[in-house]
Amino acid sequence: MANEKECGFVHGVYLQLQSLIASFWSRIWRFLEKAWELGASEPRKVIHCLKVGVALSLVSLFYYMRPLYDGVGGTAMWAVMTVVVVFEYTVGATLYKCINRATGTFLAGSLGIGVHWVASQSGEKFEPIIAGILVFILASAATYSRFIPSIKARFDYGAMIFILTFSLVSVAGYRVEKLFEMAHNRVSTIVLGTSICIFTSMLICPVWAGNELHLLIYRNMEKLADSLDGCVAEYFNRDGTAKSSDHDFGKKMQGYKCALNSKASEESMANFARWEPAHGHFNFQHPWKQYLKIGAAMRNCACCVESLSGCVNSQIRIPEFLKKNFSEVCMRLSSHCSEVLRELVVTMKTMTKSSMTDLLVEDMNFAVQELQNALKALPNQLISPHGSVNDAKGDTTSKQFIVPVIEIVPLATTISLLSEIAARIEGIVDAVDDLADLAGFKPATDNKSKQSQCTTDIIDDETMKVLQKV
Amino acid sequence: MANEKECGFVHGVYLQLQSLIASFWSRIWRFLEKAWELGASEPRKVIHCLKVGVALSLVSLFYYMRPLYDGVGGTAMWAVMTVVVVFEYTVGATLYKCINRATGTFLAGSLGIGVHWVASQSGEKFEPIIAGILVFILASAATYSRFIPSIKARFDYGAMIFILTFSLVSVAGYRVEKLFEMAHNRVSTIVLGTSICIFTSMLICPVWAGNELHLLIYRNMEKLADSLDGCVAEYFNRDGTAKSSDHDFGKKMQGYKCALNSKASEESMANFARWEPAHGHFNFQHPWKQYLKIGAAMRNCACCVESLSGCVNSQIRIPEFLKKNFSEVCMRLSSHCSEVLRELVVTMKTMTKSSMTDLLVEDMNFAVQELQNALKALPNQLISPHGSVNDAKGDTTSKQFIVPVIEIVPLATTISLLSEIAARIEGIVDAVDDLADLAGFKPATDNKSKQSQCTTDIIDDETMKVLQKV
Repeated sequence: MANEKECGFVHGVYLQLQSLIASFWSRIWRFLEKAWELGASEPRKVIHCLKVGVALSLVSLFYYMRPLYDGVGGTAMWAVMTVVVVFEYTVGATLYKCINRATGTFLAGSLGIGVHWVASQSGEKFEPIIAGILVFILASAATYSRFIPSIKARFDYGAMIFILTFSLVSVAGYRVEKLFEMAHNRVSTIVLGTSICIFTSMLICPVWAGNELHLLIYRNMEKLADSLDGCVAEYFNRDGTAKSSDHDFGKKMQGYKCALNSKASEESMANFARWEPAHGHFNFQHPWKQYLKIGAAMRNCACCVESLSGCVNSQIRIPEFLKKNFSEVCMRLSSHCSEVLRELVVTMKTMTKSSMTDLLVEDMNFAVQELQNALKALPNQLISPHGSVNDAKGDTTSKQFIVPVIEIVPLATTISLLSEIAARIEGIVDAVDDLADLAGFKPATDNKSKQSQCTTDIIDDETMKVLQKV
Repeated sequence: MANEKECGFVHGVYLQLQSLIASFWSRIWRFLEKAWELGASEPRKVIHCLKVGVALSLVSLFYYMRPLYDGVGGTAMWAVMTVVVVFEYTVGATLYKCINRATGTFLAGSLGIGVHWVASQSGEKFEPIIAGILVFILASAATYSRFIPSIKARFDYGAMIFILTFSLVSVAGYRVEKLFEMAHNRVSTIVLGTSICIFTSMLICPVWAGNELHLLIYRNMEKLADSLDGCVAEYFNRDGTAKSSDHDFGKKMQGYKCALNSKASEESMANFARWEPAHGHFNFQHPWKQYLKIGAAMRNCACCVESLSGCVNSQIRIPEFLKKNFSEVCMRLSSHCSEVLRELVVTMKTMTKSSMTDLLVEDMNFAVQELQNALKALPNQLISPHGSVNDAKGDTTSKQFIVPVIEIVPLATTISLLSEIAARIEGIVDAVDDLADLAGFKPATDNKSKQSQCTTDIIDDETMKVLQKV
């Protein structure tokens, strides 16, 4: 009996253990699956990892090969550290860190040696006190500078490296006698590390922050156009087709959220992009700041699209005859709006000034005007719509055909949001025009050639595939 | 003559030099002014800088004092480095970096030593090859893991330190014979550095990421309420008072932008907050993620307020009698909306469940219903408003008093946006309710006591002063 009980207990423990292991294993499996999906959707990230491996292996050579080892000495450790700390996903971020690290180290090193010399002149007793006070003051000041937005955007990492090197030099300077040698070693190993990083990141499948920013902006513009089209189509065809249940369609409609949420990544990419040399179609002084303005204009517009999508989901139905009257003109406006956006996308993709944009904007404004006119024509219809709509009933009293204002409200909201969206799209057009002027986009020679240019545009196929999956 | 020319030239150069120096000086001056303003508006940032200075001075002691120097040895450099790299503005960020650094170093160090041992068993010839391959594989894998969102949010820094330490240990292991000693030194100095950082950041005027997040969220909620009130008041009183020219008022109206743009800072603060121990009224397992949901609900609502503010600036005027009819009911709804928001602010400030919220939400919904009813009552007025409004003219034909639909559009938009805002505020209420449940907010005992509690709430005066200036 006791034996049986024990057997049951052991069996229970065994089962529990088994389920524990199974759940642990399934968690690991899910994690690996997620990791695999990430890699499959963005192979460039996998390439980046291999690049880090290559850079580290290269720098390790300086340790493994004896002749080099004797040359660079024990401080080769700094080279390894530089590679690990400095190597980033985009070329711009890597350059930003490399230049900041080199400059910060050089400045702090020279200052540290100077301070050390001054302190050593004042006698051995005061040396640590002077050095300590100076470390305190300079570290505090440099830390403070990191809060100032203009410094933070460009030199945050440099300020940190400045503090680090200055503290190390002035603290170690008191002990280590061979200060100059140490400084020289540190600078040379950092130069070694940074140059390995720069070459690896620029020569093996480079990921340019500027290019990424450019792609991000016009991909978001495309998504905005898609979701605008989707919202309006959904609104007027709601009862016709059950499109909203379609997963792809729903995803398309949510596209404006990408534009709304990409502020932080736009800013960081614009910050990194300005460190990059000329690449692809971008010059060294490409106006990256203008991209932020385009992004802001797009967010402004996306806000309206978000409100519009709120309206789409509102409970109140529009009366059928109003819907019929307005669906065409509203759909026309929205398609004009998205055409303008798509033309801007082409402008950005091909980096050529489009002659079509002005025409399309005119068309869009004309469509707005048409919508206003349709509205102006409405009151008579509201009072006697029987001729056109409710003729089946044959009622002739006008009062019962009056549509209560409350039923017009959702339509009116849609209309004024659409007009507002059109106005905000003009803001995007202006921002893109400014970019075209600042970056010196060439005028497109011919529309047809442009269309074909669009398919073989500056963005390579690989990147486009990745983007389509995103 | 030549002398005169030369004199003129020298004078010109002198003038140019002078203006150059003056412009340089004025730039420096502007920069300093900006830095001063930053410090004056946020004294805690100045304190942070002094804290960094203190931590660095403390760690320098280990270099300056001979007995300690002999104890910790030349690797005290690592302690200085740890302090500089790890010390962040908020306690959470510092803890995140400290824990990640310590764990990453420990894991990579043990693994590195293990690998070194395995490699050394396979003979001197294969040792560098095996070590090199392992560095390549592990560095690539760890770099890849940094792209996975769940790892990136929590262990990004740890993964970097893992790569760094592993590379250093396995690369240096081949050369440095005293591997164990080095590992031990590195760990002990890192423990020293991190503990100095943790104590300095937690004991001297600590800035808790959690507290900052809490403040940010309810400050944004207040700003949202202000700008909602401002927009509606501006819309209905536009011609009455020239409020919009008032700088303060304009700033208040733009308050919703803070809610729209704070996604990135909310996310980073929530990430850091979960590393923090219990502090103030927050437990260790405070549901910080819920704050992100509140933030998202607020952004959702802010989008509508932004569209509403677009309507405020629209060209089309509402007919006077409609304005008169609706201004009261609209203002009532908006004030109910902002009352709900302000009650939520009080709930969050005092961290007590409010019994008022449900009542206020009911009031808000009642106001929405009232607005709908006012709209429903409208058609008759539209057809014969002469009795109430245009009686001065004495016209009796009904047709000429019909308000064209186009003139109703801005009002209709405002009304439906207001209703949408009310609906989205309910979303915020739900999110805050969830927070109250998850965090176990106590029910408020009495409304009056709550009001007084509100003034002496958990946020200290200093912080409030700072926030009022922001």
